[in-house]
Amino acid sequence: MKYINSKQKRNILSMAVILNKRKIFNDPVYGFVPIEYDVIFNLIEHPYFQRLRRIKQLGLTNLVYPGALHTRFHHAMGAMHLMREAIEEIRSKGHVITEDEAKAVTIAILLHDIGHGPFSHALEHSIVNNVTHEDISELFMSKLNDEFNGELSLAIQIFKNKYPKKFLHQLVSSQLDMDRLDYLKRDSFFTGVSEGVVSSDRIIKMLNVVNDHLAVEAKGIYSIEKFIIARRLMYWQVYLHKTVLSAENLLVNILKRAKELAVKKVDLFCTPALKTFLYNQYSAKDFKSKPELLNIFADLDDNDIMASIKVWAKNSDKVLSMLCSNLVNRKLFKVEMQSAPFKASKINKIKTEIKKRFNLTDKEVNYFVFAGTVANDAYRSDKIGIDILFRDGSTVDITKASDQLNIDVLAKTVKKYYLCFPKSIVS
Amino acid sequence: MKYINSKQKRNILSMAVILNKRKIFNDPVYGFVPIEYDVIFNLIEHPYFQRLRRIKQLGLTNLVYPGALHTRFHHAMGAMHLMREAIEEIRSKGHVITEDEAKAVTIAILLHDIGHGPFSHALEHSIVNNVTHEDISELFMSKLNDEFNGELSLAIQIFKNKYPKKFLHQLVSSQLDMDRLDYLKRDSFFTGVSEGVVSSDRIIKMLNVVNDHLAVEAKGIYSIEKFIIARRLMYWQVYLHKTVLSAENLLVNILKRAKELAVKKVDLFCTPALKTFLYNQYSAKDFKSKPELLNIFADLDDNDIMASIKVWAKNSDKVLSMLCSNLVNRKLFKVEMQSAPFKASKINKIKTEIKKRFNLTDKEVNYFVFAGTVANDAYRSDKIGIDILFRDGSTVDITKASDQLNIDVLAKTVKKYYLCFPKSIVS
Amino acid sequence: MKYINSKQKRNILSMAVILNKRKIFNDPVYGFVPIEYDVIFNLIEHPYFQRLRRIKQLGLTNLVYPGALHTRFHHAMGAMHLMREAIEEIRSKGHVITEDEAKAVTIAILLHDIGHGPFSHALEHSIVNNVTHEDISELFMSKLNDEFNGELSLAIQIFKNKYPKKFLHQLVSSQLDMDRLDYLKRDSFFTGVSEGVVSSDRIIKMLNVVNDHLAVEAKGIYSIEKFIIARRLMYWQVYLHKTVLSAENLLVNILKRAKELAVKKVDLFCTPALKTFLYNQYSAKDFKSKPELLNIFADLDDNDIMASIKVWAKNSDKVLSMLCSNLVNRKLFKVEMQSAPFKASKINKIKTEIKKRFNLTDKEVNYFVFAGTVANDAYRSDKIGIDILFRDGSTVDITKASDQLNIDVLAKTVKKYYLCFPKSIVS
Amino acid sequence: MKYINSKQKRNILSMAVILNKRKIFNDPVYGFVPIEYDVIFNLIEHPYFQRLRRIKQLGLTNLVYPGALHTRFHHAMGAMHLMREAIEEIRSKGHVITEDEAKAVTIAILLHDIGHGPFSHALEHSIVNNVTHEDISELFMSKLNDEFNGELSLAIQIFKNKYPKKFLHQLVSSQLDMDRLDYLKRDSFFTGVSEGVVSSDRIIKMLNVVNDHLAVEAKGIYSIEKFIIARRLMYWQVYLHKTVLSAENLLVNILKRAKELAVKKVDLFCTPALKTFLYNQYSAKDFKSKPELLNIFADLDDNDIMASIKVWAKNSDKVLSMLCSNLVNRKLFKVEMQSAPFKASKINKIKTEIKKRFNLTDKEVNYFVFAGTVANDAYRSDKIGIDILFRDGSTVDITKASDQLNIDVLAKTVKKYYLCFPKSIVS
Repeated sequence: MKYINSKQKRNILSMAVILNKRKIFNDPVYGFVPIEYDVIFNLIEHPYFQRLRRIKQLGLTNLVYPGALHTRFHHAMGAMHLMREAIEEIRSKGHVITEDEAKAVTIAILLHDIGHGPFSHALEHSIVNNVTHEDISELFMSKLNDEFNGELSLAIQIFKNKYPKKFLHQLVSSQLDMDRLDYLKRDSFFTGVSEGVVSSDRIIKMLNVVNDHLAVEAKGIYSIEKFIIARRLMYWQVYLHKTVLSAENLLVNILKRAKELAVKKVDLFCTPALKTFLYNQYSAKDFKSKPELLNIFADLDDNDIMASIKVWAKNSDKVLSMLCSNLVNRKLFKVEMQSAPFKASKINKIKTEIKKRFNLTDKEVNYFVFAGTVANDAYRSDKIGIDILFRDGSTVDITKASDQLNIDVLAKTVKKYYLCFPKSIVS
Repeated sequence: MKYINSKQKRNILSMAVILNKRKIFNDPVYGFVPIEYDVIFNLIEHPYFQRLRRIKQLGLTNLVYPGALHTRFHHAMGAMHLMREAIEEIRSKGHVITEDEAKAVTIAILLHDIGHGPFSHALEHSIVNNVTHEDISELFMSKLNDEFNGELSLAIQIFKNKYPKKFLHQLVSSQLDMDRLDYLKRDSFFTGVSEGVVSSDRIIKMLNVVNDHLAVEAKGIYSIEKFIIARRLMYWQVYLHKTVLSAENLLVNILKRAKELAVKKVDLFCTPALKTFLYNQYSAKDFKSKPELLNIFADLDDNDIMASIKVWAKNSDKVLSMLCSNLVNRKLFKVEMQSAPFKASKINKIKTEIKKRFNLTDKEVNYFVFAGTVANDAYRSDKIGIDILFRDGSTVDITKASDQLNIDVLAKTVKKYYLCFPKSIVS
Repeated sequence: MKYINSKQKRNILSMAVILNKRKIFNDPVYGFVPIEYDVIFNLIEHPYFQRLRRIKQLGLTNLVYPGALHTRFHHAMGAMHLMREAIEEIRSKGHVITEDEAKAVTIAILLHDIGHGPFSHALEHSIVNNVTHEDISELFMSKLNDEFNGELSLAIQIFKNKYPKKFLHQLVSSQLDMDRLDYLKRDSFFTGVSEGVVSSDRIIKMLNVVNDHLAVEAKGIYSIEKFIIARRLMYWQVYLHKTVLSAENLLVNILKRAKELAVKKVDLFCTPALKTFLYNQYSAKDFKSKPELLNIFADLDDNDIMASIKVWAKNSDKVLSMLCSNLVNRKLFKVEMQSAPFKASKINKIKTEIKKRFNLTDKEVNYFVFAGTVANDAYRSDKIGIDILFRDGSTVDITKASDQLNIDVLAKTVKKYYLCFPKSIVS
Repeated sequence: MKYINSKQKRNILSMAVILNKRKIFNDPVYGFVPIEYDVIFNLIEHPYFQRLRRIKQLGLTNLVYPGALHTRFHHAMGAMHLMREAIEEIRSKGHVITEDEAKAVTIAILLHDIGHGPFSHALEHSIVNNVTHEDISELFMSKLNDEFNGELSLAIQIFKNKYPKKFLHQLVSSQLDMDRLDYLKRDSFFTGVSEGVVSSDRIIKMLNVVNDHLAVEAKGIYSIEKFIIARRLMYWQVYLHKTVLSAENLLVNILKRAKELAVKKVDLFCTPALKTFLYNQYSAKDFKSKPELLNIFADLDDNDIMASIKVWAKNSDKVLSMLCSNLVNRKLFKVEMQSAPFKASKINKIKTEIKKRFNLTDKEVNYFVFAGTVANDAYRSDKIGIDILFRDGSTVDITKASDQLNIDVLAKTVKKYYLCFPKSIVS
């Protein structure tokens, strides 16, 4: 250790403060992710945000891709990181983004999914079925804004697309936002489905702003084509993978059955937070009139659902216990998928067999044999599109700029029909 | 579709069967991992093994490295994959491994950690404290062996190092086993700590057997050096990271406090499986005399612990609720770490302050202020070492073969002292 | 070192032989690549094959993507590696590939590009312009077959698609061969254009054989779609990148000018091998009648071309020296690219200006201002397609099996017109 | 295309200028690498720098690791990229680096290796043997400074460590400079030796400046340990790999033999630039008195050497042709390596056998049988060390800060003796 004089000491002391303040978080996807603003750091530390650590981004997808255990917390942090890069890039091209705007748009992306509950889509289709996660996101943001003395007001404006500089909202929510860039990359990384890898670096380097709209410089056209296609493939290979669908439908049916029993006042083991929502039916209005509801919702996470389901696997209700035991031990239903609807006669034949085998009523069998549809749009031509910016300053929608992508193909919603039933049946 | 004649049809039918049977699982670390044997597939499908999907490999490490959510299930599958490669490599060098042995050693590695409970080390230091996970592994294996009609007998022999071909046991458990190769690589991948990356490919390619002992061909010496060093660094950077230590100690204290209350017959919210172990004190002997205990243990996973802790955060016991709330909201204790023991005077001064601030008794304060030690050996010269095989057929221990590694340095146990206390205190 | 008895010694000696024989080569793309057969090893050691170490796979592409310096040697080794994996996979599905066939198909892929000279396409359009690289590949293979006492006969049959088991040829040359799988992956790796990454692992795992044709199991359909699209994008982003086109056309013009001067008996500095081909005009027939020609051709590589061009940059012929100096110092021509032909008037205007500026004749100016076209087919529906194999045993062409790919779009040859001229001109 | 009003048009025009000016280069190691300053861009375009595109970073290493074809151009660009990141990081911690200093230190790292010729070490030991590459670097920089009207003066000061802010020089040249960080990472990437991977991101994030010296914050201590060890391993596994040594010594001997013949006025095929240096003996003084020499040196690259050697393989001088043919066809000498000198008796025995077999004189045999030594220091304790910065502001040398690294081991120069001779001999 060298001798340090008093002047140096002062210098070092102030440096030590800087050392303490700089927060970096470790991400296997991007490496180091710095946290830029104090308010961001404080939001991350808030229990509302920390709960996202306990909510998996892809729900039950890990039953197919065992690495897919990453959380909404991690995704929000990643999207925040891309936002910082996008801001830097756009500024470097001569467009003004003030510090306040930068902070706000970063907050907006950080909190864009704050309202998601555990196994979000399953929950919305069963237990918390009158309130969307978008509603709850707004409730959380508004509550946080109060706690942070209005420091989130600008972020909320941007999030709701009420701020004049429209491109800021596009960075948070559009067909080429930081949300999509991060989740495609992250989901691809953790599932190991390399087809979904998106070159977020390249796309961000090509971002520009024209007439207050995000645009991608013409050099980036291939990356955008790739991005659209990668997203489409991730849908079919991961998000709508038939075994994932099977697992998620099983979970929906479990929660529906539990709700059915709860309505009949059957006493089920539950964590307190889950009990509140299972044994009551709340609307968005209730969330506003009873502020404590939001805090109870904030207590819910994947653990409540799984811990309860494991107990229900031994419940005396045969339907509930069979369904739960199937999920816990990964005895998932078989799924058939096709481009036309399934014939009623086929479905009925299977139902008859299952009813007989498991001694089920007409109503109960629907928990075991059920049909549905999934659909995906690769690109929505009816929404604000992705603009390509040419060197002469003109912009053209990607679907016109590309001589490769066929808009008629991509804009066509691909719809598939599926049918689930216990594996032992030969359809 | 082309016309298919009847001979082709038969051919296709048998092929379809093959298609159905081949099982591949998706791993972001290795890509595709095939499952070789039916018995392996059936073991993986067993509830005892499926439960490992709900037990994180690195416990609370995700509080520091948010990607570290991978499970014991995933690690076991990865180690199985490396075992397959090792078997292939060793066979290609002219050593006999029969199909039965191959199957058995693969089963042995697949099940090597089957006895781990949730947050294993924390649990063993608090609730299930008279039974080690090694005991439970043996119980599970024995139980499975019964269910599988003795098909695991050879695997168990190898696991317990009672099989004559000793190198098979070394592949399962030694200073260079498939367990270590996988966990270093996997933990490095999911934490994003690239320093821990180990070239498992290269090491396996260099494996050989001499006199019934595993040996690494001389060309691989640098990879072995790197492996030992990477492991050492992973210890300090991840496994014994001071914030991870802080979180794990917090969890131990939570469970100890809960146990203390349980002993006093205080009624705590619990999942049934957790309740069994919290409110009773079982020994290894009990597990043998009451076979149902093992099944209850098999019901325990990370969800039981976290779901209960979230409820306890609102318990009327101040100590329990404070500790749990700290964990749930990631208000971790501050940790100081140093190479000498902390002075009693320092510890006492902090305790006094904390007692006063939170109005705690002499006993209670120990849940908030506590000291401990951690230690790590890079390489144990007292254990069976890693042999390096030279072209002349001679083998030499890595510590003698390397002109780079200093055995005196590496064999020295590095021990560090730590002190934890609430962050608000200035030590 | 332990004591070794004489029996062990014998054991070790034979092991040492094995140690010596096993050859592994190091590839940043796949990791370790083993060399399976002695004949393969001996072919790789042959000067005809070693010369591929000095011929870059992507010619002048490194002027745009500086990492793209990988050689035809490296690509051939990579394709050999994928062939080994494909053989293993197809065998595991119950199809017979004998050891002789496996060896032969591996030789065939190893040597598939053996006839390429330096900057192959440029050379074929200028100096060695009456003989294709396919002609020369056959000459090399035939010559090697003589040297190897007929050991390549089966490989040559497969290469020429004269062997009954047609799927073996498809592995070497088809729309889904090991050649394409390797070059897309490798070119993507070394250029850094991540969009081109192809999941060769996944595709190979899905390979099967039906009615003696390669087929991809239905699960792999997304990977095939991705493969076709990745290839198309690699064409536009790398292979036909406009600056790459500019550099390659510059090289063609250099070689044409040199040839023009050579025909006029102007003495140019040349390596002896280059001199032979620059100052003579040989046909495929000549190669057969003068066996030494093939050996002289085998002496040619990238070094001959670049070393000569660097000297020509100081030649007294103004056209030659200007062109060469432009290439050496990377003063590449500007390229305009569009989907319609360039107007003669525009081209003439530029020519007039350049003629004046550099004091060139009407003929000379064509070395500096020139138009051309490039085209790419993503998928050729008129060729043997990629079959998708469904679980019922039926196969369907990818373009019909996919509800995503629009065959009309993909099968349409995309053609682009380009115009090159010195940068200083404003078009 | 949307309608654009005249105000927008102006806006777009200025943006178009920005679009044109921003230069990005594509690196498979780091992704996109922007070029920050016009002067940097102009230096890169200069023929002196463009020549580095034709000089491989690792000489003949590609004969062992076929991917190792990356050039000094690529490495210089990569080091420039890391410098930009380091500047940004250091500035973010409150230390002043002016724009002029940033530009200068970036120029200094860009040009740090500009004086390297083809196969640099081989050339310095044979043909250009009175002038070091450091001498030539200074000549190039000085010449460029003239051409750029003094714009490089500050860069040269920093390069020569004559600028007051010493830490800037440390970024260019020290035991933890951007040169080392890049080459370890890049060489590891292109060889595929994953053991050498260095976390440049992490290290740069931990950089700080104390008392005008670079320091690494204490959190980065493990990364520094890893960096030192990775570098040591890369030395033994790549840079001093015995087959690489064999190839490089073969090249030295080729060039020595050629020189010997040149001195005797034997006429050898040569490119003009190579001829100049082969048939003359220039000193550093000559380079200063004859400015054209530097330009002739600038004409030399890997192509000159390899193109000439290929011709020499057919030379009538038996020694030269045998050596060259060995290199061209990769018939490398066998290498034995050990930690003690080889006995003269052993060397002599081999020489006798080789002399007899190839009918060589006493002098000639030394080209075929030769011994030498290689050595590597992991860390030089006698040089300016790597400082670790603790939170209290104190700094300590890494060797004292680490409880893991043993300075006595690391500081010990590891020296190995090697002996090369034709493969056919049994030693």
